[in-house]
Amino acid sequence: MEREHLSRQFDIELDAIRGKLLEMGGKVELMIANSIQSLVERNTELAEQTIAFDHEINRLEMEIDRDCLEVLALRQPAARDLRFITLALKIVTDLERIGDQCANISKRVRELNQEPPLKPVNDLPGMAQAASTMVMEALDAFVRGDEALAIKVCADDQVVDNLNDLIQRELLTSMMGDPTIIGRAIKVNHISKCVERIADHATNLAEMVIFMVKGKDIRHTTIGASSPSRNWNP
Amino acid sequence: MEREHLSRQFDIELDAIRGKLLEMGGKVELMIANSIQSLVERNTELAEQTIAFDHEINRLEMEIDRDCLEVLALRQPAARDLRFITLALKIVTDLERIGDQCANISKRVRELNQEPPLKPVNDLPGMAQAASTMVMEALDAFVRGDEALAIKVCADDQVVDNLNDLIQRELLTSMMGDPTIIGRAIKVNHISKCVERIADHATNLAEMVIFMVKGKDIRHTTIGASSPSRNWNP
Repeated sequence: MEREHLSRQFDIELDAIRGKLLEMGGKVELMIANSIQSLVERNTELAEQTIAFDHEINRLEMEIDRDCLEVLALRQPAARDLRFITLALKIVTDLERIGDQCANISKRVRELNQEPPLKPVNDLPGMAQAASTMVMEALDAFVRGDEALAIKVCADDQVVDNLNDLIQRELLTSMMGDPTIIGRAIKVNHISKCVERIADHATNLAEMVIFMVKGKDIRHTTIGASSPSRNWNP
Repeated sequence: MEREHLSRQFDIELDAIRGKLLEMGGKVELMIANSIQSLVERNTELAEQTIAFDHEINRLEMEIDRDCLEVLALRQPAARDLRFITLALKIVTDLERIGDQCANISKRVRELNQEPPLKPVNDLPGMAQAASTMVMEALDAFVRGDEALAIKVCADDQVVDNLNDLIQRELLTSMMGDPTIIGRAIKVNHISKCVERIADHATNLAEMVIFMVKGKDIRHTTIGASSPSRNWNP
């Protein structure tokens, strides 16, 4: 009876960590959307809000880290629970760095809004949306133990990389045509690279999820897609 | 007596993890040096070797992750040992991503060596050396629990960031003066950004070390430098 109580308590704690990771993911998703919206609408106030909001992401990182350490210390989890906790520790780091990238985007937006507007880079909002979807799908795959979704996220990284290449070439052509825009175009280029890094973080998350689901490490191999999977959270 | 034996065994396991992290750090340091050397000397063979060597870094990542999970499962460490293991899990991720950046540099070098040489970017080797020193000092700070060294690493990040800005401006000026070099100059610019990301990873490592030494989370605060520290590994 005592053991059953402990086990229920443990499940509640794991669910709480899962919930906080999703909460953090939702907030990071909002940051990505707002940072790009502040660029498109030249909204400096929204950019400032996004920069300030990064504190909330940092707070959640420290909170989830602390929760994971407590569970490790008090519950001494084994097998899949241990893998869940140790991967939560790694995932929270990637989420926090995505928040950093959004703050970086917003800082460039704040600078750009002090200068005359540039011709909009049409592919940038779509690229940011694709990266944001990758982040949420990677987290979703983590929470549900969905290997197929994690594999999809890894594949989608190429789409974002291609858009980044396209944007970089477009900006370079613009710069060559009109040297007066160089300073501003470099800032937009930096924003595009920030979005590309967000997608890289999502890919890292997805790779770790595949590790968790399989219970063995398929990072850095090509066997990932062919091995049998099992349901993580039935 | 049995307990003493277990405790000795546990110390041996922690030392083994510490040793493997240093080994991985040494190999990453070599990758940074070789990737930049292959650029300076236009040595495609060395670039190929560096790309291939990334597998060794990936192998060590998986091995250290597995060792940490085993220690967590079997020894149920508490307090500072628990912090050590959980941070080793995070640190190994940063080291692996530094290896990825070196492979990225080497891939650009391989492409550049197919084309006529560009005027060398004089600051690049020094910048890479500074980033490499940051990585080793961050790891050193981790192993020795040296908070002052970790704080120095965080401060050094600005030096690398400034060099990256300088290099980007220099390349841009060259491109404007001679549009035929644009394709190559963009690759060198990409290499400079890879080095900057290596320094960012070192900074992340150092921030985590400060957390470990203090036993409380000073990430995302400004109080880090004023709180009392204690010796991690006396």
